[in-house]
Amino acid sequence: MAKNEKLVKSITSRDEDFAQWYTDICIKAELVDYSTAKGFVYVRPYGYAIWENIQKCLDRRFKETDHVNMALPLLIPESLLQKEKDHVNGFAPEVAWVTYGGKEKLEERMCVRPTSEVLFCEHWKNVLQSYRQLPFLYNQWGSVVRWEKTTRPFLRSREFWWQEGHTLHETAEDAQRETLQQLDTYASFLEEEAMIPVIKGRKTDSEKFAGAEATYTVEAMMHDGKALQSGTSHYFGDGFARAFDITFADRNNGRSFPHQTSWGMSTRIIGAIIMTHGDDEGLVLPPALAPFQLVIIPIAQHKEGVLDKANELKDRLKSLYRVKLDDTDNQPGWKFSEYEMKGVPIRIEIGPKDIEKDQCVLVRRDTREKIFVSLDNLEAELERVFNEYADALYARAKENLVTRTVELEKLDEIIEQADKNDGFIKSHWCGSTECEEAMKEKAGLSSRCMPFGEQGVKKGVCPICGKETDTIVVWGKAY
Amino acid sequence: MAKNEKLVKSITSRDEDFAQWYTDICIKAELVDYSTAKGFVYVRPYGYAIWENIQKCLDRRFKETDHVNMALPLLIPESLLQKEKDHVNGFAPEVAWVTYGGKEKLEERMCVRPTSEVLFCEHWKNVLQSYRQLPFLYNQWGSVVRWEKTTRPFLRSREFWWQEGHTLHETAEDAQRETLQQLDTYASFLEEEAMIPVIKGRKTDSEKFAGAEATYTVEAMMHDGKALQSGTSHYFGDGFARAFDITFADRNNGRSFPHQTSWGMSTRIIGAIIMTHGDDEGLVLPPALAPFQLVIIPIAQHKEGVLDKANELKDRLKSLYRVKLDDTDNQPGWKFSEYEMKGVPIRIEIGPKDIEKDQCVLVRRDTREKIFVSLDNLEAELERVFNEYADALYARAKENLVTRTVELEKLDEIIEQADKNDGFIKSHWCGSTECEEAMKEKAGLSSRCMPFGEQGVKKGVCPICGKETDTIVVWGKAY
Repeated sequence: MAKNEKLVKSITSRDEDFAQWYTDICIKAELVDYSTAKGFVYVRPYGYAIWENIQKCLDRRFKETDHVNMALPLLIPESLLQKEKDHVNGFAPEVAWVTYGGKEKLEERMCVRPTSEVLFCEHWKNVLQSYRQLPFLYNQWGSVVRWEKTTRPFLRSREFWWQEGHTLHETAEDAQRETLQQLDTYASFLEEEAMIPVIKGRKTDSEKFAGAEATYTVEAMMHDGKALQSGTSHYFGDGFARAFDITFADRNNGRSFPHQTSWGMSTRIIGAIIMTHGDDEGLVLPPALAPFQLVIIPIAQHKEGVLDKANELKDRLKSLYRVKLDDTDNQPGWKFSEYEMKGVPIRIEIGPKDIEKDQCVLVRRDTREKIFVSLDNLEAELERVFNEYADALYARAKENLVTRTVELEKLDEIIEQADKNDGFIKSHWCGSTECEEAMKEKAGLSSRCMPFGEQGVKKGVCPICGKETDTIVVWGKAY
Repeated sequence: MAKNEKLVKSITSRDEDFAQWYTDICIKAELVDYSTAKGFVYVRPYGYAIWENIQKCLDRRFKETDHVNMALPLLIPESLLQKEKDHVNGFAPEVAWVTYGGKEKLEERMCVRPTSEVLFCEHWKNVLQSYRQLPFLYNQWGSVVRWEKTTRPFLRSREFWWQEGHTLHETAEDAQRETLQQLDTYASFLEEEAMIPVIKGRKTDSEKFAGAEATYTVEAMMHDGKALQSGTSHYFGDGFARAFDITFADRNNGRSFPHQTSWGMSTRIIGAIIMTHGDDEGLVLPPALAPFQLVIIPIAQHKEGVLDKANELKDRLKSLYRVKLDDTDNQPGWKFSEYEMKGVPIRIEIGPKDIEKDQCVLVRRDTREKIFVSLDNLEAELERVFNEYADALYARAKENLVTRTVELEKLDEIIEQADKNDGFIKSHWCGSTECEEAMKEKAGLSSRCMPFGEQGVKKGVCPICGKETDTIVVWGKAY
């Protein structure tokens, strides 16, 4: 890294301009680079390493629950995309169309896949014969293309990287159980590894995935109070199976239609991490997802023994943590800024005075607290500090979520609150799309979800139409 | 799995029709399914699990040599593709063109990437400033699209999955070293993990990658004597850097052009594994790449204690190997065929008589040799049998390679040999493209490579023009 590049590493503050702060981090923490092709990005090695860690965490969870990976074609013939009516209506307006192969015009144009439901259906129709084969618990890692108008790195782009799980089941109950199980997988990944608290719930009909009977979501609140839909899980019933005429020999010697789910989580999560944990010095990464969990920075490294000791520490810790030792000839101050920008959870400083005292200094990325640790006790102290650090990230995000979620019943109060402050507003809702639309027009709020555990519990009135109801909706402004 | 599906699991024999035998394995071992989109395939979970193991083996080797992964845009604007003349001439005839985004016709059409050299160049131009940043040692995992006319699963298809490494260096020497280092990485992966012996060498000019100064290859011989180009590594010099005007502040306070490499290995390797190790019962997998290395098949599993013992074995072995226990109610004979078709290296049979004798039976996939093993000694015996099995796969393939490679000097002998037998022919060659073309016309042979260690050693004459030369070429018929 050239020294002159580091001089420009200061970023806009969150309070000054949250959107600019976000973009600054994306660029200055070397997460992305822009393509000349509008809406497409390069995910740079440091950003991609975060994604690789997300992939590992999710893939492990998927495999523990018997899911297997496969790969499907990148291109979908138009006739295949059109087989399920709601689905094609949802996606056709935003797909990229391939019309030529080399110099030859295609007889039928093909789209770059925006999602793979219809591909899985084509495949399943070929291979499914009997109930004995079910369930199919499949997942695909890759990227998809949707021709978005306005784009921002990680949050909305014409290409994004994701996993899409697609499963096929003998019964509706099995498929519904899978849909919710995968939502739980997302929630526990977000809460335990990304340290992002979420609200689990069901989407309203107008926010459902194209072709789904029910869509479930995990919604997170960013530092600015806005919502980020962080993962969704869809129950399709047998709608796709009927559209594609997929049947199997059932237990009663008849033919039945199988029931289907899909669920996805994407590189959006990197955006969620930035906007949940980041601060004015840059990125702040949860330990489970950080490319390096520790960076060792030698102080006065030209002095005898310092680099040896730093290397010794690295060798000692590398089986426990992902460790980087920065022994370049940049000044320690430069290095501190560099790894703060990159969100490395803990840095270890070691210099001649520390070596004399048989100690080193741990510095937490979030609080910048300095902790002097005897080398005898290093592993135990690191474990403690990592746990406290991760817990603190979660607690701070949780506090933001709790304090910025208000329950309101009256429309004028909701409008006033929405004008004044971003955050979530919880209210009753009659269930009609008209009132949901009215909430968007009058208060600028979209329905994020109908949160689990709060439905059918308490009667109240819809703030728009005044109808009595026991349905609760979380409203917010969303990325 | 439905029983009736298994009844049709017999396949064409290799000797009867090698091409049909290959296709049969692809389908019946559940590696791929065909798409209605010509030339595109579904890589099914069992096939994809082999690819995941290949990915792990390669990715580990890449990371051990300081390479990092990143992700680049899927689509390339036409003007970007056109910046390097040789490169665009090589690829433009076979790319898929996106001309519409939703309903809007694009101002500039974009191709689905066939390879990513120009994308890396666009990115590097943005981020490279100083020699201090170099080398960039980058890799990308993904799929690419090339509009091939005739296609076969894994060997040649309109989409294939691969890794493409792209690196940028301060000096030509550094880049050349990288090019050869990565060729060695491919060779050691193939020989040590895929158990496929290879010939390393340099491609002739007419077989070079579009835009490269030099292309190196690892060539393997399939069971039928034909060649499979299994991995290539390209040295570009500074040609792309000049075309894209990528420069850096060098050590002498000037601006210099960096030197570039790229190297790729793909799902072709699954084809190589099928055609190197497979037999008339199906796939034969090397232990390092097998989705399950062991399958446990209980005999008379309804008898008391059998399933318990089988589960106990599974638990005992699962930290050492990827183990599957098949406790479905299919007959053991069905299961034997199923896992032979899928190439599982070793099956363990355990039944009441074995339990009485405190033993189990190991059956090697390649030789079908039955080995009775005392349970006390199971781990040690498994290690021994796995090693012998893997060595035997390599030795068999090596023998095929050695016995079917003949050195010939006279054109009529070469033509006679090429007519009679597939295999490699080694001869001198004058170095001219005309003589290379003539060899294709007269003998149906393409140059596979100029093998390392054999150049400049021994004088002889070109079989076509009779000119004296010390250049040696390996010729063959290729997939």
